[in-house]
Amino acid sequence: MRVFWSKGYEAASLNDILSATGLSKSSLYATFGDKRELFLAAFEAYRRERLQRLEAALNDGQPARLSIEKFFRQGVAHAEAPEHAYGCMTANEAVELAPHDLDIQQLVTEDFQAVEQAFARAILRGQADGSIARDKAPRQLARFLVVNLQGLQVMARAKSQRALLEDTLAVMLAALD
Amino acid sequence: MRVFWSKGYEAASLNDILSATGLSKSSLYATFGDKRELFLAAFEAYRRERLQRLEAALNDGQPARLSIEKFFRQGVAHAEAPEHAYGCMTANEAVELAPHDLDIQQLVTEDFQAVEQAFARAILRGQADGSIARDKAPRQLARFLVVNLQGLQVMARAKSQRALLEDTLAVMLAALD
Repeated sequence: MRVFWSKGYEAASLNDILSATGLSKSSLYATFGDKRELFLAAFEAYRRERLQRLEAALNDGQPARLSIEKFFRQGVAHAEAPEHAYGCMTANEAVELAPHDLDIQQLVTEDFQAVEQAFARAILRGQADGSIARDKAPRQLARFLVVNLQGLQVMARAKSQRALLEDTLAVMLAALD
Repeated sequence: MRVFWSKGYEAASLNDILSATGLSKSSLYATFGDKRELFLAAFEAYRRERLQRLEAALNDGQPARLSIEKFFRQGVAHAEAPEHAYGCMTANEAVELAPHDLDIQQLVTEDFQAVEQAFARAILRGQADGSIARDKAPRQLARFLVVNLQGLQVMARAKSQRALLEDTLAVMLAALD
């Protein structure tokens, strides 16, 4: 997962994959078939893990506005750590593979929809607990958060300054008020 | 430019490049040196062209709020045309190459800064002409617009539904009011 996440699909070589997994070429192919199958398994693992983290962050027992803010602020803080410097694997694959590969395009779309759903539920919770303005359309706000999350991750992958990401968060979060 | 823009750097083959340019292998190498040099020239052409378009759109003689809105709405409408379905080449390279290639990272950063500058000037103009709220910090708003532009282009490259992009625009533009 980390090899594909950091390098992208095309640039990930067989040697990179063998040295990361510690497998021999024959056992890698026996288990996963080919590079594309291995990639799909890695991408699935990434999506599953990330959605669980998002759900946990958005349901941390605090007012929803604060849960959302903490999730984004943590993401911005993490962007500076070398092990999180790869941006979002879904965004990366949306860029690298989705335009040419309908299977990947479908997985990317499903992933964006799952993230949108998670944000929409958090926004409804925030409108119920009073932390998010009730006159805003939850679906619109959720989609806006998905797009901002993708944009922030592209910028983080390009090693943008933290101040730029923080400024964006300030304006983005005000949309919830 | 179109070959790299649509396929990305790694996936663009020599054959793709030869058939798009109509050059022979020897004259391609004589003119550009190698694939990376050719890519840098293509990327430079893209950045120059796109910045000119952005500047023209943001200085179209209308109130700045409307200029910004038209620029984004046109982008969303264009995203559905096959010839514009590649997203933003800067965002693509930010994802594919910037994490591993410091020269590209530098070019991507400069490009994001130039776009931020163009938005910041438009926002100042809008605060002067009364179309954009004066209590907002222009730099913050400009950075927020850069991140949204990148996010919208990632989503467009993954062939997201237009409704999703439109919903995002509605919330994003309200930040100017």
